[in-house]
Amino acid sequence: MSREWISEGLYEGWRQELRVDRMLARTKSAFQDIAVFENVDLGRVLMLDGVVQITERDEFVYQEMLTHVPLLEHGDAKRVLIIGAGDGGVLRRVLEHGTVEKAVMVEIDGEVIELSKKFLPSIAGDAWNDPRADVIVGDGIEYVSNAADGSFDVIIVDSTDPIGVGEVLFTDSFYRHCARILSANGIIVNQCGVPFMQADELRDTSARRAQFFAHVSAYVAAVPTYVGGFMTLGVAAKGGVPGRNSVEVIRERAQRAGIGEGCRYWTPEIHGASFVLPPYIAKNLPR
Amino acid sequence: MSREWISEGLYEGWRQELRVDRMLARTKSAFQDIAVFENVDLGRVLMLDGVVQITERDEFVYQEMLTHVPLLEHGDAKRVLIIGAGDGGVLRRVLEHGTVEKAVMVEIDGEVIELSKKFLPSIAGDAWNDPRADVIVGDGIEYVSNAADGSFDVIIVDSTDPIGVGEVLFTDSFYRHCARILSANGIIVNQCGVPFMQADELRDTSARRAQFFAHVSAYVAAVPTYVGGFMTLGVAAKGGVPGRNSVEVIRERAQRAGIGEGCRYWTPEIHGASFVLPPYIAKNLPR
Repeated sequence: MSREWISEGLYEGWRQELRVDRMLARTKSAFQDIAVFENVDLGRVLMLDGVVQITERDEFVYQEMLTHVPLLEHGDAKRVLIIGAGDGGVLRRVLEHGTVEKAVMVEIDGEVIELSKKFLPSIAGDAWNDPRADVIVGDGIEYVSNAADGSFDVIIVDSTDPIGVGEVLFTDSFYRHCARILSANGIIVNQCGVPFMQADELRDTSARRAQFFAHVSAYVAAVPTYVGGFMTLGVAAKGGVPGRNSVEVIRERAQRAGIGEGCRYWTPEIHGASFVLPPYIAKNLPR
Repeated sequence: MSREWISEGLYEGWRQELRVDRMLARTKSAFQDIAVFENVDLGRVLMLDGVVQITERDEFVYQEMLTHVPLLEHGDAKRVLIIGAGDGGVLRRVLEHGTVEKAVMVEIDGEVIELSKKFLPSIAGDAWNDPRADVIVGDGIEYVSNAADGSFDVIIVDSTDPIGVGEVLFTDSFYRHCARILSANGIIVNQCGVPFMQADELRDTSARRAQFFAHVSAYVAAVPTYVGGFMTLGVAAKGGVPGRNSVEVIRERAQRAGIGEGCRYWTPEIHGASFVLPPYIAKNLPR
C-alpha cells in the first residue's frame, strides 16, 4: 500500500518527511493549516502550516524542558501564564507543580485546542479540567497588554516560529508587556528555534528582551523532531540569573513541587547542564 | 530548475531529505555506495549506503566531541588508533593535540579516503601529511587482532551503524581485542546512534563492552544531521571512570594539549555536561 508523506519545508535544501499512516484531521482554521495524523515511528503528530509542532513520542523532551526549567528556576511560581501551546501539553506539565495556584493559557486558535482534545488526549491528560486552569481562546498580545502589573510569576511562550500567526510574539511590544505583568522575580521563556539553522531567532529575541529584562540567556534541549541539533529555549528574568542555581537547590525545589518521578528527559542534573552552551550557540546571546 | 533530492531511509516512516545541488561523485566501491554532493544548507555532504556520514557545515559537532572528549579524559594520550573515519576529520582533530605522538588510522574503504581528499579537503586539512599520521587502508578487526598488547592509549571508532560493512565493529571479538591492545588507562569511544530511534545500539554495545572494560558509560552530542535528538558516544575505560574529571582538570589538560581556541561545540563545560544523560538514554546503560 502506498502512503502519503508530508514534507516539512523550513529550509531550502534540507527537510524532514513523515509518513502519514492515517490522517485524522486536516483543516484550514482562521489562522493556519492544521494536520493531525498517525505515524509509525512517532505516534500521533500535530503540524501547523506544514511544521511539526508536537508528536506523541517525543513531546516529553520539549514539554518537560519548556516547563520545569523556568518554574524551578523561579522557585516559588504560583501564577503561570502560557501563550500558545494549544495541545495542552505545557498546561499539564505546569499543573504537575504542586506549588502552582493558577495557570492561564491563551491560545489564539480554538481549533488547535479542539483537535488536540479529540485526537491527542494523552498530551494534556486531565489538565483541561483542573480547577486551577483558565483556558482562554484569544490573542496573546492582547492578553498581555491588558493584564495587570506583576500578575504572573512565570510566562511560557510556546509559539510557532516567528512567521505567520506567531510573529507578534517576537516583538518589542510583546516583551515590554511581559516584563510589566511579571512579578519582581518573574521569568519568561520561549522557544528560539535551532540556532544551527535559525541563529537569527535566538539573536533577535535575546537582543529585544535585553531591553526589558535584567538577565537574558538561553538553555538547550535536543528535541528529536525539531531537526537541526540543539533547540534553544530563550529565558529572561527580572530578578535572579537563570541557570545559576546549584543542582542541589533545583533538586530540593523539584521535590517540594512534586516533580521528577515521571520525567524522561528532565533531571536536576540535565537542568543544570542545559544552560551550558556550545560556542556556536552562545555567540548569539548579548554579551 | 528541478533538482534531485536524496532520502535517508533509516526508519520506516520518518526520513530526512537533502537536495543535491551538485553531484560531485557517486560510485559503488567494493564495500558500499558512496555519494558526495553539494547542498545549499549543509555544504558538501558524504553519504555511505544512503546514510549521511558528514557534512562540511556540521562536522565540527561530531568530530570535536568524538575526539577531544576521550583524549582529554585520558589526559596523557600519546598513541591513538582510529578505526574508520575515512574523511580524515577525526585524524585532523587527534593531531591537533600536541601531546599525541602517533595516530594510526585504519579505514577499510580506500575510495572513501580518495574521494574525501578530492572533494572534502577542508575536513582533514593537512592531517594526511602529518609525520605522526599512519593511514592504513585495511580491515579494522584484522588490525586490532594483530596489534600488540597495550599499544594504544585511546581507540576512536568512527563507524557506520551496525549494519553492512560496520557490523564487525560491534562484536565481542572486536571489543576484546580493543581492551587487550589498550594501555592500562586506555579508553575506547564509538558512536552508538540516536537512542530515541536506535536504543538497541547503545544498549547492546554497552553490554558487550562491560565484559571487557572496568567502566562503561556514554556521553551525548546534538549533531544536526544525525536526526533524532541526542546522538550517544559510547565510552569504555580500563582504568579511571570517564566523565568524573572536574571542568578545571579538563580545561588544564586542554590548554596543555593546545585544544580549545578553534572549537565551536566543545568547551570544558560542554565536556562535563555531555556526560549528563536524560533518563530515556541512561536506562540503556548497564547498572
